[in-house]
Amino acid sequence: MPEVTIDPADWVCPLPLRETKRIIMGHGGGGILSEELIENLFLPAFGSGSGAGGPSRDSAVLTVPAGRIALSTDSYVVQPLFFPGGNIGDLAVNGTINDLAMSGAQPLGLTAGFILEEGLELELLGRIAQTMGKAADHAGVGIVTGDTKVVGKGSADQLFVNTAGVGVIPDGVDIGPDRVRPGDDVVVSGNVGEHGVAIMSVREGIDFGTVVTTDSAPLHGLVAAMLAADGLTGTRGGRIHALRDPTRGGLVASVVEIARSAGVGIALDEGAIPVPEAVASACGFLGLDPLQVANEGKLVAFVDPAATEAVLAAMRQHPEGAGAAVIGRVVAEHPGMAVGRTSFGTTRVIERELGEQLPRIC
Amino acid sequence: MPEVTIDPADWVCPLPLRETKRIIMGHGGGGILSEELIENLFLPAFGSGSGAGGPSRDSAVLTVPAGRIALSTDSYVVQPLFFPGGNIGDLAVNGTINDLAMSGAQPLGLTAGFILEEGLELELLGRIAQTMGKAADHAGVGIVTGDTKVVGKGSADQLFVNTAGVGVIPDGVDIGPDRVRPGDDVVVSGNVGEHGVAIMSVREGIDFGTVVTTDSAPLHGLVAAMLAADGLTGTRGGRIHALRDPTRGGLVASVVEIARSAGVGIALDEGAIPVPEAVASACGFLGLDPLQVANEGKLVAFVDPAATEAVLAAMRQHPEGAGAAVIGRVVAEHPGMAVGRTSFGTTRVIERELGEQLPRIC
Repeated sequence: MPEVTIDPADWVCPLPLRETKRIIMGHGGGGILSEELIENLFLPAFGSGSGAGGPSRDSAVLTVPAGRIALSTDSYVVQPLFFPGGNIGDLAVNGTINDLAMSGAQPLGLTAGFILEEGLELELLGRIAQTMGKAADHAGVGIVTGDTKVVGKGSADQLFVNTAGVGVIPDGVDIGPDRVRPGDDVVVSGNVGEHGVAIMSVREGIDFGTVVTTDSAPLHGLVAAMLAADGLTGTRGGRIHALRDPTRGGLVASVVEIARSAGVGIALDEGAIPVPEAVASACGFLGLDPLQVANEGKLVAFVDPAATEAVLAAMRQHPEGAGAAVIGRVVAEHPGMAVGRTSFGTTRVIERELGEQLPRIC
Repeated sequence: MPEVTIDPADWVCPLPLRETKRIIMGHGGGGILSEELIENLFLPAFGSGSGAGGPSRDSAVLTVPAGRIALSTDSYVVQPLFFPGGNIGDLAVNGTINDLAMSGAQPLGLTAGFILEEGLELELLGRIAQTMGKAADHAGVGIVTGDTKVVGKGSADQLFVNTAGVGVIPDGVDIGPDRVRPGDDVVVSGNVGEHGVAIMSVREGIDFGTVVTTDSAPLHGLVAAMLAADGLTGTRGGRIHALRDPTRGGLVASVVEIARSAGVGIALDEGAIPVPEAVASACGFLGLDPLQVANEGKLVAFVDPAATEAVLAAMRQHPEGAGAAVIGRVVAEHPGMAVGRTSFGTTRVIERELGEQLPRIC
């Protein structure tokens, strides 16, 4: 009988628990491993802002003034998890901040709910969590509570994350599609199409010559600057009538949705819409309409023309609004419909996609 | 050449769009199909409470008094989606309500974030959404905003849902582990172990003789009744010191966590813990500890003994607290540790699981 020797260096713990470099089912069990994941990975990554939502709290406590708060949620399923300029983590933080900001709210606290696939590398999760912590810190808002679930290998695609958030709507701010009226200017805060093209370039492995990076950014500071420039918000007569962040479905989805819910027409001057050269050529190559490609750090504002000059000037002073431009006007004609005047001088109806151009873009 | 006839009844639309009975990728694209899903499935299911969060809103607006709000989130990945007494929908609604209630908050609004697997039957999604609407209605809270993402077949397991919620903490309520002190009574609101056993019975296809149904229920009404019975909350001297809902990890996880975070010892009288006969026999069969099995409609309270009688009486008057019982006491000895006096008169250390007894229980 041959002698069997075991080299100690080859020995692997038969129960790969604390030594694991990957997510195992027990990380989602609510026991000691869950606590260790929170204490050793999430809390250090989320930083001081997460103090209120330590491992032993079911919920976080926040202090608010009397008045209105905004509540929002988004789940993120983007693939790949990492792409030029960002990853799913900053997308999740900025996306929910922006949903809050579109009602004029300043974010107060965020939640983070993870669904992890068994086998996910802890290093990957750690990098994503750190990105979330940095993005929240940059935006001045805390990730104050969270939740982690683990599902078996093959029951999810690496990592999904949901963020929800609350924000405080300053007194007197009154932003919503019901306030949009014919004559309003349609203003976009900068280049469109970058996020979607950044994702597609890595997903398809296509080199467009220039690397297009995601525009993912928090917009509440830009919104605050715009409201201050308007100067009339304290009287409930603010002249920034509605705000939208053109994510899934792009600029087209935002303007069509405003046209439909406000019962107005929208006429875009397509030549005035800032589409970077690299985005335009990538979209041409991929057969996409850049106006329907997702953005993650842009807004569309519907502004009383009496305030447009001041608001536009304030936007251009702000890093997230440096490329702001008037791209169209709200009209009384063709209610519920958006049209575009093309660079050839012709007019086309702008319609949303039935489904989606680009799956899992956010 | 044989004649080919096509029976019109056999004809199937080659592009199964509006006629689809299943989720397709386009339902998550933010376009027309997404809107139709919201308008025709989610909004009718969520009912009047969802008015503030219609399809065209990125966020919902809620009005709050000055003071403290609680913010909480949980993702739900339970399998199977349907089980005796409930489904993932009411679990998701009640679970987040209960997380809020454990800080003494009354729920104000919930979010619902869905991650759907391509191919999911719309009928199934509809039933789950209706259950969520009914559960929210029963609890008197609205599902005010939401989000839907779709991932390809095989990239998720049917349906995951995240709920987040905000609640208002009444002025003067001061509940938290830091207030727990030696001498406090440990009170449980009723039978333990039912939810976990309900899931396991269908998952394993085991007939235990008696059908054990989930205890999923909202607990904010019970908490309000307990606070009223204490009667001292307005003075910041409330005698209900801490509350926990013993979900993943069961009763054991809750008491160990309080022992650790409050730096106290906890001595449970195991014979006083209400474990239904059917739960005990199922756990015996499955090799589980009923004290570590998840509950979804129970709470554990740490109460100043001067208030226990009044609080217990109020609990027993409430449908969700009818089986309330004192099950132990907080002690100065063995800080950070919970012990149980068994029915044999011996004492054992009660320790949490490292990972999990039952995966995907909620």
